[in-house]
Amino acid sequence: MDVRIILVGTTHPGNIGACARAMKNMGLSDLMLVRPRHFPHEDATARASGATDILDAVRVVENLDEALLDCVYVAGASARSRTIGWPSFTPRDCAARLLKEAQTGKVAAVFGPEKSGLTNEDLDRCHALLTIPTDPGFSSLNLAMAVQILTYELRVATLDGPPPVYEPEAPLASGEDLEHFYSHLEQVLIDSGFMDPENPRHLMRRLRRLFIRAEPDRNEINILRGIFASLDPRKPGQKS
Amino acid sequence: MDVRIILVGTTHPGNIGACARAMKNMGLSDLMLVRPRHFPHEDATARASGATDILDAVRVVENLDEALLDCVYVAGASARSRTIGWPSFTPRDCAARLLKEAQTGKVAAVFGPEKSGLTNEDLDRCHALLTIPTDPGFSSLNLAMAVQILTYELRVATLDGPPPVYEPEAPLASGEDLEHFYSHLEQVLIDSGFMDPENPRHLMRRLRRLFIRAEPDRNEINILRGIFASLDPRKPGQKS
Repeated sequence: MDVRIILVGTTHPGNIGACARAMKNMGLSDLMLVRPRHFPHEDATARASGATDILDAVRVVENLDEALLDCVYVAGASARSRTIGWPSFTPRDCAARLLKEAQTGKVAAVFGPEKSGLTNEDLDRCHALLTIPTDPGFSSLNLAMAVQILTYELRVATLDGPPPVYEPEAPLASGEDLEHFYSHLEQVLIDSGFMDPENPRHLMRRLRRLFIRAEPDRNEINILRGIFASLDPRKPGQKS
Repeated sequence: MDVRIILVGTTHPGNIGACARAMKNMGLSDLMLVRPRHFPHEDATARASGATDILDAVRVVENLDEALLDCVYVAGASARSRTIGWPSFTPRDCAARLLKEAQTGKVAAVFGPEKSGLTNEDLDRCHALLTIPTDPGFSSLNLAMAVQILTYELRVATLDGPPPVYEPEAPLASGEDLEHFYSHLEQVLIDSGFMDPENPRHLMRRLRRLFIRAEPDRNEINILRGIFASLDPRKPGQKS
């Protein structure tokens, strides 16, 4: 079981330590931090309570894309239901899905800042939402508790035996594959005049969600890139 | 869903607050404390993070028996496997069982002090053990994390729909019923000379475990009490 936990913009370093302990309790070790407010910090070490090996091995990065470069499947924690539809998983179903995809590459679960959660832009990088069932009247889970619940489900699923053998035609596209594709797509759409180069973000967000919901594998991303390359108005020999 | 959470001998008041928050997130409200080291305490209030209504309603008692007087079914958290067999449940199975028994009376889950866990004497009051699966190399869960995992499973089980209708012949015996029975039994066995009155504890522990594993209902406890009353050497008319 090799599921990466990624904490984005964590405010309280104690929560980072508590997450490390929760992970180690359940047999996980791969923790990445995106722009933590304070790290390293004595509160993180104190709350890790013996899981300092995980804190020592933490990688700190500047943005979520960097943390996802090698990931083929990503679930993003979200307390709210979202207007534009991602598939939304319970912790149990999310654990099963992560372990299934982990047979073909690195997978990750992403958790946002304590108060605000992941932004929509962060969620655009996620194949699915993880939504933990809570009392609607008091739904704000502590960050480390959310990590504990998912990692507990990962451990239970692991103990329940290996997931059924899964043989995709090709591995799912990695974060790096996707980002190259999106960059390429954006450039092609600007060149074609379809996208306003001054304001590409809204359209790109919709397209990201569209494509990631399709869970493209590496072959499919290559096909898509071939298609858009062939349609690029700036392509040599193309009419402009 | 009306499952009582009982924390015995909690050392860090912050954990009490974190447990209250974990409970409220999952829709529980009945928290009892047995001999907490510090309570009320600012750390408890801080970590409760809005679940102060649960802290305000906490009942603090002197011993576990008091907390269990009205309980018909009790699960005790234990990290270790025990030599003398209690039934041992995963959090998922424990949640299902608690909700099933909650149809006939108050049920409780009991969690011991952070470092040491529940004593064997505390576990003698429990019908079953709750054992949370962890990595054997790092099995010491934070107290509030353990409460979070069980309460999460309680919520999932509740959302999965009501448990199948359960119609026992009679409600399970309450903690009060059991304590009366054990006191009566001990007295009868001392009177009969079977039990050393200077050192009754070892034998009584074995008997407690025997009887609670049988999960006696109220009718059966009354039958047992009738049997021992009838065998009491000090009973009027009995030969001595």
